[in-house]
Amino acid sequence: MDKTAARAKFVAEFDNLVAELQEISAGYSMPQEAIEWFTKNLQYNTPGGKLNRGLSVIDTYCILKNKTVDTLAEAEYKKVALLGWAIELLQAYFLVADDMMDQSKTRRGQPCWYLAEGVGNIAINDSFMLEGAIYILLKKHFRQDSYYVDLLDLFHEVTFQTELGQLLDLVTADEEHVDLSKFSLEKHSFIVRFKTAYYSFYLPVALAMYTCGINSEEDLAQVKDVLIPLGEYFQIQDDFLDCFGTPEQIGKIGTDIKDNKCSWVVNQALLHANEEQRRILDENYGKKDDQSEQRVKDLFAELEIPTIYEQYEEEVVSKLRAQIEKIDESRGLKKEVLTSFLGKVYKRSK
Amino acid sequence: MDKTAARAKFVAEFDNLVAELQEISAGYSMPQEAIEWFTKNLQYNTPGGKLNRGLSVIDTYCILKNKTVDTLAEAEYKKVALLGWAIELLQAYFLVADDMMDQSKTRRGQPCWYLAEGVGNIAINDSFMLEGAIYILLKKHFRQDSYYVDLLDLFHEVTFQTELGQLLDLVTADEEHVDLSKFSLEKHSFIVRFKTAYYSFYLPVALAMYTCGINSEEDLAQVKDVLIPLGEYFQIQDDFLDCFGTPEQIGKIGTDIKDNKCSWVVNQALLHANEEQRRILDENYGKKDDQSEQRVKDLFAELEIPTIYEQYEEEVVSKLRAQIEKIDESRGLKKEVLTSFLGKVYKRSK
Repeated sequence: MDKTAARAKFVAEFDNLVAELQEISAGYSMPQEAIEWFTKNLQYNTPGGKLNRGLSVIDTYCILKNKTVDTLAEAEYKKVALLGWAIELLQAYFLVADDMMDQSKTRRGQPCWYLAEGVGNIAINDSFMLEGAIYILLKKHFRQDSYYVDLLDLFHEVTFQTELGQLLDLVTADEEHVDLSKFSLEKHSFIVRFKTAYYSFYLPVALAMYTCGINSEEDLAQVKDVLIPLGEYFQIQDDFLDCFGTPEQIGKIGTDIKDNKCSWVVNQALLHANEEQRRILDENYGKKDDQSEQRVKDLFAELEIPTIYEQYEEEVVSKLRAQIEKIDESRGLKKEVLTSFLGKVYKRSK
Repeated sequence: MDKTAARAKFVAEFDNLVAELQEISAGYSMPQEAIEWFTKNLQYNTPGGKLNRGLSVIDTYCILKNKTVDTLAEAEYKKVALLGWAIELLQAYFLVADDMMDQSKTRRGQPCWYLAEGVGNIAINDSFMLEGAIYILLKKHFRQDSYYVDLLDLFHEVTFQTELGQLLDLVTADEEHVDLSKFSLEKHSFIVRFKTAYYSFYLPVALAMYTCGINSEEDLAQVKDVLIPLGEYFQIQDDFLDCFGTPEQIGKIGTDIKDNKCSWVVNQALLHANEEQRRILDENYGKKDDQSEQRVKDLFAELEIPTIYEQYEEEVVSKLRAQIEKIDESRGLKKEVLTSFLGKVYKRSK
C-alpha cells in the first residue's frame, strides 16, 4: 500500500470513531442538537492536518511487528489506528485552545474553530470534549488489555508536559510587552521539548511499543533519549524555515519576528550579537511593521544564522545517528523505528 | 472534630499538594517563573469555595469505615483528602472555563481568573493544567492500588459527562438569540444531571466507595440511582432560590432571568402558561432591563411557581427516602451515606 492509500485507510477509520462517539452520546440520551454540535467539532478540528503523528503509530507498529499495513489483520489495524487518532484528538484539543490564546485567524486553510459561525467561546468546552473523546475511546477498545493503565498514564503525562511547555511559552513571549531578556536558548529548548517533542515524537512510538509488549523502562528510555532531541531538532528546523524558508516551501508566510516568538533564530542572534546589534534587535523584534522585520532579517543574515543552523543540523544529526547505532535491540526494539523518524526530518524543507 | 476544624484540616492538605506539584514541575527542570504561575493558578482557583464536594469524600469514607476524622490514621486521611482535592481541582477546571464562556465578572468574591492582572486567555491553558494536576497526583499516590484504574475511568467518565451537560447548556441558552422554544423540562433535567449531579454528588461517593473496596456494579448503581436525582433536586433548589431567595439567603443577586438561563423556574412557567402568559415570557425573558425582569417575576408569582416548587420538593424527597430505605447494605454500603447527603440538601435556604 502506498502512502496515499495508507493515509486514506487511516482517514476512513476516523468516521468509524465519530460514529462510536455519537452512539455513546446517544446512549446517555443526549439530545440530537448537542450530538450534532459534537460531531461538527470532531470533524472540523481533527482530520484536516498532515496526520504525521497518527500515521507514525501505525508505521512504528508495522516496523516492530515486521509487517506492512496490508498484512495487518483488520482488528489489529483498527486498534493501532485508534491510538493514532487519539494523538490527533490530543493535538486537536491543543490547537483549538492555542488558536484562541494566540488569537490566530486560520488553521489548515479554514477559519479557526472559535471564529467559525456561532462558535465563539463555546470552543473552550469543545476543546475539552476533544480530549474527553480520547479516554472514552481508549476505554471502549483497550479496557481489557494488560497495558490499558499504561496507555492512560502515558496520555496523562504527555498531556501535562505539553501544557507545561505551552505555559512557559505563554509567559515568555508576551506579544504586548516585548522583552528579549526573557529569552534564552535554554528556555527555547525546554519549550519545544515540552510543547512539541513529547506528544509529536515520543508519544506515537511509546503507544506502538506498548501494544507490541515492548514496555520495559529501559526501552522506553532508549527511544525517549533519541526522540526528544529529534523533536527539538524538528522544531528548530521549523523556526529556521519560518524565517529563511520561502512561502512556497513552508506553505505560509512566516510571522515569528513580528509575533515576538521565542524562536531558535532570535535566540541564536541574541547569543552572537554585539552591543550595537543587540540594540537593533531590542528596537525592532516583535514590531508589527515590515521595515522593522526587514531590519531584523538583515541582522540575522549579518550574524550568519544560516551557517550556524547548518552546523547545528550536521552536529545534531550525527549525534543522533551515533545514539541510534548503540540502541540495544535485545528486547525487541528496532533501530529502524528511529532511523525512519530521523529520515523524515533530516533536510526536509517543508 | 467539629466542622470548622475538619474544614481547616482539609484546607491544610491543599498546601501539601501544591508543594508536591511544584516539586514534580521542578523535577522536569521547569523554569521558576512558570512554576510560580502554576502555583498562583492552583491557589487562586482551587480552595476558595465551599469545598462541599471535597469534604463529602471524607465524610462518606468515615461513614463507610465507621470512623471519624479524628480516628483516621494520618496516611489514610491524606489519601482520602487527596481524592477530595481532586474533585475540587476538577471543579476549578470547569469554573475557570465556564467563567470565560459566560463572560462572568467575579467568582468567590474575587475577579474571575481570566480577568486577573496579566492572565487573559492564558486562563485556557491554566484550566487544562488544573485538570492535568488531578492525574499527576492520582498517579503519585494511587498507582500501586488495585482500584487505581477504576479511579481513572471514573474521573474520565464524569469529566466527559460534565462536558456534555455544559455543551447542551451552551447550545440551549444562547444569550444573544433568546428562543424559549428551545427550552424544556426534559432538557433541563439532562443539563443539570450531566453538568452538576455526576461530579458534585455521584463522584465523591463513588471515590470513597472504591477506596473502601465497596465497588460492585450493583452498589455503584444503587448510589447513582439516588444521587443523580438528588443532585437534580439540589440544582432545582438553586434555580428556585436564584429567583425567589433573598440576596441575604443566597449571598448574591440572582440573574437567571436577565441571563436567559434554561432554569427549572422558566421551564415550569412554560409548562403552565396560557397563550397570553407565554407572550409575556417571550417578550421579557432574557432582557437586560429591570422592568422586563419584574414582569417575568410577576408572572412566575401569578403561575404559583413557589407552590409548584414545594410540591416538587415534598414529592422528590419522599421518593428518595423510600429509595434509600430499600438500599441493600449486604456488601458494606450504608444508607447513612445517602441520608446524610439528603439531610444537607433538604430545605436548605442557601
